[in-house]
Amino acid sequence: MSNYHPLTEAEAVQYARSIPGLFSEGAVLTSREIGDGNLNLVFHIREEGREKGVILKQALPYARVVGESWPLTLDRARIESEALQVQEKLADGLVPRVYRYDSDLALTVMEDLTDHIVMRKGLIARQQYPYFAEHMARFLARTLFFTSDFYVDRQEKKEWVRRFLNPQMCDITEGLVFTDPYYDAETNSFNPLIRSEVEAIWRDNALKREIAELKEAFMTQAQALVHGDLHTGSIMVTETSTKVIDPEFAYYGPMGFDIGALVANLLLSYASHEGHTADEEVRIAYQEWLLETIETIWNGFEKQFSALWQEHVKDEMWRVPGYRERFLTRVLQDSAGFAGCKMLRRVIGLAPVADLETIEDPHVRAKAEVLALHIGQTLIHRRKTLETIGQLTAWVREVAKEKVAK
Amino acid sequence: MSNYHPLTEAEAVQYARSIPGLFSEGAVLTSREIGDGNLNLVFHIREEGREKGVILKQALPYARVVGESWPLTLDRARIESEALQVQEKLADGLVPRVYRYDSDLALTVMEDLTDHIVMRKGLIARQQYPYFAEHMARFLARTLFFTSDFYVDRQEKKEWVRRFLNPQMCDITEGLVFTDPYYDAETNSFNPLIRSEVEAIWRDNALKREIAELKEAFMTQAQALVHGDLHTGSIMVTETSTKVIDPEFAYYGPMGFDIGALVANLLLSYASHEGHTADEEVRIAYQEWLLETIETIWNGFEKQFSALWQEHVKDEMWRVPGYRERFLTRVLQDSAGFAGCKMLRRVIGLAPVADLETIEDPHVRAKAEVLALHIGQTLIHRRKTLETIGQLTAWVREVAKEKVAK
Repeated sequence: MSNYHPLTEAEAVQYARSIPGLFSEGAVLTSREIGDGNLNLVFHIREEGREKGVILKQALPYARVVGESWPLTLDRARIESEALQVQEKLADGLVPRVYRYDSDLALTVMEDLTDHIVMRKGLIARQQYPYFAEHMARFLARTLFFTSDFYVDRQEKKEWVRRFLNPQMCDITEGLVFTDPYYDAETNSFNPLIRSEVEAIWRDNALKREIAELKEAFMTQAQALVHGDLHTGSIMVTETSTKVIDPEFAYYGPMGFDIGALVANLLLSYASHEGHTADEEVRIAYQEWLLETIETIWNGFEKQFSALWQEHVKDEMWRVPGYRERFLTRVLQDSAGFAGCKMLRRVIGLAPVADLETIEDPHVRAKAEVLALHIGQTLIHRRKTLETIGQLTAWVREVAKEKVAK
Repeated sequence: MSNYHPLTEAEAVQYARSIPGLFSEGAVLTSREIGDGNLNLVFHIREEGREKGVILKQALPYARVVGESWPLTLDRARIESEALQVQEKLADGLVPRVYRYDSDLALTVMEDLTDHIVMRKGLIARQQYPYFAEHMARFLARTLFFTSDFYVDRQEKKEWVRRFLNPQMCDITEGLVFTDPYYDAETNSFNPLIRSEVEAIWRDNALKREIAELKEAFMTQAQALVHGDLHTGSIMVTETSTKVIDPEFAYYGPMGFDIGALVANLLLSYASHEGHTADEEVRIAYQEWLLETIETIWNGFEKQFSALWQEHVKDEMWRVPGYRERFLTRVLQDSAGFAGCKMLRRVIGLAPVADLETIEDPHVRAKAEVLALHIGQTLIHRRKTLETIGQLTAWVREVAKEKVAK
């Protein structure tokens, strides 16, 4: 990494120009730095007069969070680019294409997605995406199945685990998702109006035992190459296209962690819409679309994962009748548990979500936040009784109704 | 590894002499190759007229099993020597001391234990070892606790996982313990008199779903640095000393796998004693000692692991009241399940145990083997209801009684 230095915009343009096949000779290129500057530099390089250009994403050797300097390994750029390439191979069209990875500069040159918007923004604006659930079901089924012990050769799988060991990024999740929100940690940051709800969680040892178990699963269960940070800010969409980006948290972990992250963020959107409009009919229709989306994602995932299993699984033990169904039920239960943690974390801990933050009135926001906390707790507590995704969405409706009745 | 070649006895002597501090200058040394020649060369080097010498263990690049040539990585010698050194640091006196590891030759120079005997032989001879259970409880509690996420720094633990990835040796276990015995595989080898019992297992999908789940746990759950092959042939004993040897299968896996291996082999001894003497009183007394030993190991493990937890665990989530007890119950249940697999495997699969093999009359042997199969199946089926080790030993007595009544 001795040649590493953060690129200037001029250098980024020069770098993009040097890659054959991207731009015509003599093209006039412009660069715009569109990253948030916290973890990475993101340059959008365009040829004048043409819409689509190319993205250069360069990892920075630190993250500035809450005024602290937090050194971060550049190896996450390798992991991100390699994960993107694995995902592209397995779920073609659902991730940005990688044109080049430069390990010296911790730099990935990839497909320009500036014609897409961040899914979270679309959800806040109550947009519906008719292909989104189908796309995500495909992404999840294919990336999780084809990297798991149900498909990969036993010995080769251990090399995959080695290649995607990601200690620093996992450490962030282990702290911010699975530890800090559940006690009075300095990193926490929440609406003062919900303090009594948060303190009740800090005192709830039964809940915290469940979370400790989920944390241990996150730290020990190498089931598949997971994206590791699959919230709606890591997904870019148009009406017809879905692209999963930013897998710098990728590692071998529990399948339910990715599915749970997605479910959590759809449910955070669900809760946030309690505060986004006064029109009840509009709100309910959109919330129902969110729940249907969750159901379609899970059912599509289950169907495709099962089809892949039937087509590819050779091992005598995995082929025992009924084992696949039992395994998938466990993944559903894990997903619900991880979703619950991710919901609590976004309300109590560092890194809140715009879905809730954009509710200006703190009292209205508190109502949505408390709903999110209650849904999250319900998922964590009841997860081991889950058999179908319909039960999960029914719990959400039930909790929402109770909250509104109060 | 370019300098690797299998040592001759003369070279082994010369090598031992070259290590400072082991032998006096000009000592007359003799070598005896005491390995079984299947996986490793084991040279016992002694100075004439003195009892204690030194052991040179050198990995061979292949294993000859069932007439097949089976190439095996020499990296297992590194893993073995490093695991021994970790275990010595954590459980001083319970593993042979390592004097030197030579990576070029895949050679470990270690403490001579020829004044000890293999535990399995002692068990066949109905020897009782009054310190054995206490020693093993200490070994298990300390090696499993201090290498787990409950003690090791989160990021450092991932480096431990990397260092002890052991794809080839895990592959052997995944095949021989968790796959082949449960269908009509070529590697299987069992007493023809028990064929109908074995075929009933092959048809039992409910049982095989449980085993598939245990297999998946073995392949994915990086809880602690486990020995990985902790049967009574991997333990050397005297009346007062216990030494755990041969950790070449060491990897990051479920804690219950080590505890289960030990329980399984004590229960295989239990079953074998159905055939080792006609004197019922003698038999029952010994079998009861074996069950007490299992109880003392678990209870001692639980007590010491809990004490270490209380002393060392800092993480907010692991310290949630009741989580430790819940975790240990899960380890107990896992241990029972893994013990069951290990019992079935030793009766049906490759690599039978001397405990059963030394019963000459095949009909008497069949009786003991069927008892082992029934105990194993009971442990697998009922494991998730286990709360105490006393329940497990009660099941064993219950199954034994039923078998004898038939």
